[in-house]
Parts: sequence; structure tokens; C-alpha cells
Amino acid sequence: MRLAQVETPALLVDRRLLDANIAALASFVQSRAPGVRLRPHAKSHKSPDIARRQVAAGAVGLCCQTVREAEALAAGGIADILLTNEITDADKAARLAALGRQARISACADHSAHVALLSWAAREAGTTLHVLVEIDAGGGRCGVPSAEAARELATAVAGSPGLRFDGLQAYNGGAQHLRSFAERQAAIANAARIAEAASDLIRQSGLPCSTVSGAGTGTFEIEMASAVYTELQCGSYVFMDADYARNQPSGESGVPAFEHALTVLATVISLPATGRAVCDAGLKAMSLDSGPPSLARHPGLTYGGASDEHSTVQIAPGTVLQLGDKLQLVPGHCDPTVAMHDWIVVHEDGVVTDLWPVARGW
Amino acid sequence: MRLAQVETPALLVDRRLLDANIAALASFVQSRAPGVRLRPHAKSHKSPDIARRQVAAGAVGLCCQTVREAEALAAGGIADILLTNEITDADKAARLAALGRQARISACADHSAHVALLSWAAREAGTTLHVLVEIDAGGGRCGVPSAEAARELATAVAGSPGLRFDGLQAYNGGAQHLRSFAERQAAIANAARIAEAASDLIRQSGLPCSTVSGAGTGTFEIEMASAVYTELQCGSYVFMDADYARNQPSGESGVPAFEHALTVLATVISLPATGRAVCDAGLKAMSLDSGPPSLARHPGLTYGGASDEHSTVQIAPGTVLQLGDKLQLVPGHCDPTVAMHDWIVVHEDGVVTDLWPVARGW
Repeated sequence: MRLAQVETPALLVDRRLLDANIAALASFVQSRAPGVRLRPHAKSHKSPDIARRQVAAGAVGLCCQTVREAEALAAGGIADILLTNEITDADKAARLAALGRQARISACADHSAHVALLSWAAREAGTTLHVLVEIDAGGGRCGVPSAEAARELATAVAGSPGLRFDGLQAYNGGAQHLRSFAERQAAIANAARIAEAASDLIRQSGLPCSTVSGAGTGTFEIEMASAVYTELQCGSYVFMDADYARNQPSGESGVPAFEHALTVLATVISLPATGRAVCDAGLKAMSLDSGPPSLARHPGLTYGGASDEHSTVQIAPGTVLQLGDKLQLVPGHCDPTVAMHDWIVVHEDGVVTDLWPVARGW
Repeated sequence: MRLAQVETPALLVDRRLLDANIAALASFVQSRAPGVRLRPHAKSHKSPDIARRQVAAGAVGLCCQTVREAEALAAGGIADILLTNEITDADKAARLAALGRQARISACADHSAHVALLSWAAREAGTTLHVLVEIDAGGGRCGVPSAEAARELATAVAGSPGLRFDGLQAYNGGAQHLRSFAERQAAIANAARIAEAASDLIRQSGLPCSTVSGAGTGTFEIEMASAVYTELQCGSYVFMDADYARNQPSGESGVPAFEHALTVLATVISLPATGRAVCDAGLKAMSLDSGPPSLARHPGLTYGGASDEHSTVQIAPGTVLQLGDKLQLVPGHCDPTVAMHDWIVVHEDGVVTDLWPVARGW
């Protein structure tokens, strides 16, 4: 089947660009910081098929944000999975602990109640759960607020049956989207200082702290060079959304410039007036939370706006567009866009080569 | 099962508030404009279960925005379905025409190519498709640009085997979200003038134009009183999202004030610092395209921001919140929020009474 025959809207992944992105990050990290592990984030793709390609390229395992994602990854053969999130629900904790029979499972905690729940679930399941204490690295979301609180919680983990203390989760999501490299550098320097102070204190109390995990597509080169982070959690680099592409690069040579491997395929369903087209991918097919999609692949077309099942497109004079023509839009934000679709349509040179399921829902 | 036991994030509908909204609009239209038909829009709920409740309350049928929704409605026993959209894909046209064996099916056209495709599909399926010519009523999306173009296309429909010309689709989506009643009134007065000029011209050419369909939750009372519109397409009133609730009402007595029947259930998963909580419903569980969700049901809590699977919440001094507590967030925009979920969890007095499937995808 050719792309022109695919019913729209549909989520497309260009297999060659995807593999090029996976290879580019893996070889960059391996050459510049061979001691730093790569643990890509599956929340971007929710796809065991893509996760296996990342592991084949050298990743030590995957991150995920939900228990549902962890289950899909384990079922897909991923042997080392970190839930970069807290859970308070007993059923979810039990589901997570059960995965410990198939894979090495880690989760995060920022409160003694998380530690107690994970310990209970691991003992019930007869498995071991590895735990990272999450520290607020400047993002203002989850995480204990101080090195002293991190040390206390690490001690609680180390003393809990069924659990193993591995280290720290120190992710600053907001830093990923600061536009200038200098701003991102300052935010991650602060995150690294916070993580280092906590890991020093934990080690002083006699516990090992072998892992400091964090980073994302917007800042990974900074964490990588920090000498504090041992593990990078980049997710969006596999697809590279329009929002990340708006960041100013560091200017350093050799840093990979990732390609837009993910697009949403849409059909031109209306040409109601000169200079205006309407296509059939709207708010239910693409997330606009980080700005509009890009029409950079279609010279002469400019994105207008979205409603539930429509996007309007402005057509420059001289550009020819016909009813039924297909457009490929690069989403502003890949992660929530992927979660709107059940299948990834994989293509090469305009031909569909695979359908990969998306582990939607919870 | 009680709501406190439901795994989160989950999409909730309060059955009593839903039925009250359905009854309130039906009785308002029936008492004020008995000649105006109600054809609620299924794009808001994607649920045959809710559609049947709307028909039971007097709706003549349903609108939908995708062929997938039309299929779900027909399978759910809805006998009269209008696709308020154009299609250019032969497979989709064939799927739509096949539904003509089960239900009265209508679709929109704003180009002779749509007319030719619908005629071909109806003849192939051996069914009849009813057609509304869509006219741009000021929304700047789909629709022919003039009364003369509408007349030409109506004539083409009337002369096409397998098709029946019914009238005009004249929807102005942007008008729904103008904040002041006066602005909305001016926008719909303009839409009604456009629709009236086109229907007059069509009738002068000897064709009947029995239907002028349009309106939404933000403006329906204006279309209803216009003496031009014969059919109202309100959708969001069943759930009433936070964005519509920001509109200033007309001030006229008796106009229904719809209740927030739809919420997203979330769990407090982290209390990392004084005054801050984090819950597990983020950008993948709620659409933020029309602004943030409301926490009005939880005095002392203010919505902070969202990431993929998290929302941060500010806690006022004196407000007590615990790990594992459940929150009900009123989405900013119901339609794309519903499309993120596979099931609607129906509840009454805190008890789950039903699970209704959502006709997601395309």
C-alpha cells in the first residue's frame, strides 16, 4: 500500500529517519561519554517495536510514565524498565510488581507512603522492585525538596523488604523547552548541583547511589557532560516534534540534529475559497498544546488553525493543491499526539511497510 | 464499585446531570420554537448510548463529524444521521453509503467533486444519500463562498442519481466562543443573513430548501430565534465544558444553564512541597486547547499546569489533601478530551452504574 491510499488521519513514522535518530543519539553518547547510559523514554512512542530498536542500538533499557506502558514494554521483551513516576494505587502497584517476574523493574518515590506501597506489592508478588528517590531538580513537579529529605527516603527504601535503592530520579521537564542554550545550561547546572548534593549526602550515610537518572531531548548534552548524571532519559528525539525544533542549538559541533520522523497524514477535504484549504486532521488527531503543527514539508502552505476534525491551511499564490491531496503535518508535541492513535503506520519511500500498535490508555 | 475505586485517569459522566442537560435543551427548544428540530452533535460524546437518550428526549436524529461516528451511531440504532463534513475518499464514501441500508444518511458538500463522489457511492451501494450544501456562514472553514455558488451546487445535487438535496449546512464554529452575547448575536445574525440569501436563491430556482442546519452550544438560542435555521446542532451542552462556561450568558430568562456532567477523575500521586500536589491526569487525559481544566469542585485547589501524565495543583493554606485522594477536573474542551478515552464511566451518587464505549479513531 502506498501512503496515498492510507485512510486519514493517520500517524506515520518514516522508518529510515527513525532509525537514523536512534543511531545518532546512541553513537553521540557512546563517543562523548562512554560511561553514561542511555535509557530512552517510551512515553514518546508507547511502542515496544521502537523500544526494541533502541535497545538494539545500545540502550540499557527504557523509561515509561504509566504502568500500562511498563506492561506493554515487558510483553514486548524489554528486560529493564524504569517507571519515572510515583503511584499510590494498590492495583497499579500490584501490576507493576508482577512485571518483576519478566523484567528488572524500577519505580520512583518521593514519600514514605510510596516506599511502603512498593514494598508491600513486591513482597506480595515475590519480586524485587528497584527504587529511585525522586528529587525536585527545579521542575516544580514531583520530588522531595531537599538533599536531607532524599537521604531519609533512601534510608527507608534500603530498609524495606522487597525493595532495592538504586539512586536518584532528577528530571527537570521545564528546562527542555527553554529556547536559548544558555538558559537550558543554567537550569541543568542547577539540577546537577541539587542531584550531586543529595547523592553525596546519601553516600555519606553509607548507602550506594549508583544511578542519577534524568535529561530529555532538549538538554541531554548538558546532563551528559555534567559528571553527575549516569543515565539519560531522552524520549522525543526518536520523532523530533516541531516544538523541540524551535530550540536554539548549542552550536557545539557533532551534536545530532534529529529529523522529523513522525507526521500526521491528512487529506485535503475542502478548497472553499482562493488561498484556503481544509484538511481532515484536527484537535483529535494532533496535540496543539505546544503550538501548531508545521507544514514545512509543503512549500507554499501555512498552517491556519484547528477544530475537532479540521485544520485550515493557507495556500500561497502559485501553489497548486487539489481535493484529495495528502499532507504530512509535523506535530507540535509528539507524545500526546501519539497517544491519540491506535497504530503507527511505518513507511519507507512512500510505501507502507509495517503497522505498530500504540500502548494507549492506562 | 465506588468512584474512589476507579483506576485513574478515567472519564466520568454524572448520569443525572447528563439527563438534566438533555432534558433542559429539548424542553427549551420545544417550548420556545416548536418548529425547530434538534439534531445534537455526536462529536462531543462519540457515544450511541448518549445519542439514544437524546433521541428519546425528542431529537430528530444526530450529527457526526466522521464516518466512524456515523457507523457507531447506526450500529447503535440511530435512524437519522447527518455527517456535517465533506469527504473526498472513495472508501469513506462507500462506508457512508452502505449505512443507508440501516438509517437515513445525510452528508455535506461544498464542491462538485463531493457531489460526484457521493452520487457514485450511493449508486454503488444502492442507497440514497441526502445532501446539504455547506455555505461559509462566517467561520472561514468549509463551505461555498456565495449564495450563487450554493444555488449551482444545489442544482448539481438535485440532478445527481442516488442523491437528494435537502438544504444548507450553515455552521459558524468561531461564533460559539465569542465571550460577549452581543458579539455572538452579531456573528449569528450575519450567518443567518448568508443562509437566508442562499436559501431564497435556491428556492427561486425551483428547488425546495427544507433544511437550514447549524448552531452550537454557545449560540443556539440565537439561531433558534432567527426564523432561518430549521435545525440545531448543539453538541457540548450534554457535558458543558469549562470553556463554554466562560461565555457571558444572554441574560434572557429561561435559557438553560447546563451543568458540568463530564469530568476527568485523577488521583493525587505526590505531595512534594507545602501548597503543591501532583495528580495523574495530564495532556494525554484532557485536552488543554481551550484553556485549563477547572477545579471548581474542590474549594481551596487551583489548577497549575499539565505535562504528559501529570497536572500540578496549588493548595490553599488550610486545605487538607492526602496522597491517593481523587480529584474531578472539568475539562476546558470536552470533545477532544472524550476522544482520548475508550470508555465513559457513568456514575450516580458516587457509584459506578455503567460503562459506555467511546467510538474513538476513524
